[in-house]
Amino acid sequence: MKVKGQPMRPIRATQDGRAVEIIDQTRLPHDFALVRLETLEEAALAIRAMLVRGAPLIGATAAYGVWLALRRDATDEALDKACQSLAATRPTAINLRWALEDMRATLTPLPAAERAAAAFARAGAIAEEDVAMNHAIGRHGLGLIEKLARPGRPVNILTHCNAGWLATVDWGTATSPIYQAHDAGIPVHVWVDETRPRNQGASLTAWELANHGVPHTVIADNAGGHLMQQGEVDMAIVGTDRTTANGDVCNKIGTYLKALAARDNDVPFYVALPSPTIDWSLASGDAIPIEQRDAREVTHVWGRVEEGSEEGVVLPVRVTPEESPAANPAFDVTPARLVTGLITERGIAEPSREGLLALFPEMRLKAAGE
Amino acid sequence: MKVKGQPMRPIRATQDGRAVEIIDQTRLPHDFALVRLETLEEAALAIRAMLVRGAPLIGATAAYGVWLALRRDATDEALDKACQSLAATRPTAINLRWALEDMRATLTPLPAAERAAAAFARAGAIAEEDVAMNHAIGRHGLGLIEKLARPGRPVNILTHCNAGWLATVDWGTATSPIYQAHDAGIPVHVWVDETRPRNQGASLTAWELANHGVPHTVIADNAGGHLMQQGEVDMAIVGTDRTTANGDVCNKIGTYLKALAARDNDVPFYVALPSPTIDWSLASGDAIPIEQRDAREVTHVWGRVEEGSEEGVVLPVRVTPEESPAANPAFDVTPARLVTGLITERGIAEPSREGLLALFPEMRLKAAGE
Repeated sequence: MKVKGQPMRPIRATQDGRAVEIIDQTRLPHDFALVRLETLEEAALAIRAMLVRGAPLIGATAAYGVWLALRRDATDEALDKACQSLAATRPTAINLRWALEDMRATLTPLPAAERAAAAFARAGAIAEEDVAMNHAIGRHGLGLIEKLARPGRPVNILTHCNAGWLATVDWGTATSPIYQAHDAGIPVHVWVDETRPRNQGASLTAWELANHGVPHTVIADNAGGHLMQQGEVDMAIVGTDRTTANGDVCNKIGTYLKALAARDNDVPFYVALPSPTIDWSLASGDAIPIEQRDAREVTHVWGRVEEGSEEGVVLPVRVTPEESPAANPAFDVTPARLVTGLITERGIAEPSREGLLALFPEMRLKAAGE
Repeated sequence: MKVKGQPMRPIRATQDGRAVEIIDQTRLPHDFALVRLETLEEAALAIRAMLVRGAPLIGATAAYGVWLALRRDATDEALDKACQSLAATRPTAINLRWALEDMRATLTPLPAAERAAAAFARAGAIAEEDVAMNHAIGRHGLGLIEKLARPGRPVNILTHCNAGWLATVDWGTATSPIYQAHDAGIPVHVWVDETRPRNQGASLTAWELANHGVPHTVIADNAGGHLMQQGEVDMAIVGTDRTTANGDVCNKIGTYLKALAARDNDVPFYVALPSPTIDWSLASGDAIPIEQRDAREVTHVWGRVEEGSEEGVVLPVRVTPEESPAANPAFDVTPARLVTGLITERGIAEPSREGLLALFPEMRLKAAGE
């Protein structure tokens, strides 16, 4: 997608072929800064310190991290060490482990002299596979948006959190249909949930849409239900961290509330998901453990000071009394019954075991039972 | 209720009888500061600059403001001028106008020499009427909490925004049952929605509960649905700005989403309301105009800096990109069908026209039709 009119990706090999360049997402939306990664250690730090985030982007960064390591030392031992050190950066990230297993399987059989070049090629392929998958999701979602288009008004789409290009290698998942509709000249307008407590909507999704030129409005998470009651939302599209075999959707905390409001107001509620995020081993969302994150994400808000002696500084401010504890469940589960459809790279699935298996029949043996 | 163990109200006459003392609520939760009001101008400024907020508290402050004016000049002209200047501070506040009409009707027939003393007495009576009404609401709500009490665990109550004692003269509305249960020794624990965008839950409700010693936890507004799914919420109690004749409830933006989640999880959802907030002239909530507030409340968050050269300073930080617009509808309407009961000073009404009229039969002629 575009930044200030120029095509941009959150990760790409530099033109000289000697490094990887990423966007430092910790500085968004206030500063746009590219960071050059030249070593394994730099790649690991970029993941650990969340300069890159989002499952597909973490996977791609790890794959390039293996390349950076092997460029210096392509022995079996170095490959092992690189995979271990990258895997330890975000212990629960599934894509990260998947990308590292893929790299290891590709590289281990090769002679050491060929490994660095093969690693570079495979990392690039992993990145392009993500782009292709997200593009396909967007193509299927575009059809849904086209059907809602009416003369004289934009299609109003609500989204939650950041399932945008910054979380992937390009296009994003929930945003891919939106970008494709916008690029095709269909007028769209996006209601961007700010997505407390980490504000990924207010900081990342809004920044993406502003830079690509897609009309949008940031709202408090509380506002979406009211906007649906008023007929101001034509559809909702969100991403997902994990979808279970029956179509239950685990996504950023607050997604469930929007799905309830969508149902109450007959607003179609879609979830965009690359198939690797389907967890066929889980029969339903009840089994998903929900991460409890640091209370400080609730008690403090990061932002940029606009006046005074610290003007321009980005810092945290406390919003709660010091005596008050806070809780911070990071995800919730939206039951399949509230989902209109699952937009995958193969098409739109009904949110059910049979619906998913109709698109992914090869998973029938793997999928958890009713 | 209590602050640091001492009984406190957000407004009261000083012991020397010469002034009114209020809490400067703009400085909560970071600083607790009392402000002395000695003139009409100071009272008007306290309302306009939101040192006091909440419909009942604004009404009481205006009533005392009339007293402060008449103490200096008790002519008809001065009375008129005082009422006009106070009414202009918050043009849409219904309680404010009601309190001023009450004061004017009480004082106009009296000789000028008696007006100041009568104004002081009537302002005190208006304040005490609010306290009595909120106490009665709490007594009825206490019964609901008692029924949910189970040995070995607290009753978990979710609330949204601040319908607490800071918004009234004492007890609050939604918080009154909670304080009475706590004071009666029933273990309660309150989930406090932070209530974006103005964070009244995170700043005011949490501060109230912390100071009175009621166990509570601040959460992002997004978290309530998940907590209900997990069985962590036994009931919800919220306040209301306006309730229509059929029991539809207009309250702070986001209330509707919590009511949907409560219904989806069989969690009782109660609304606490003093009867003056019932708008008998409106047949349903569709007719309520929703205030659109300043986008800056969404794009910027106020909080206290905790380190660096501005340590201790309370200031706004920007959380969104400069290019991104924001929208800020301040209220939403929760349809009566999602409300379990309306806790009034006369008892608990079914959320319907007939339910409300059963408790307030004298309103039958005034109430808007089906």
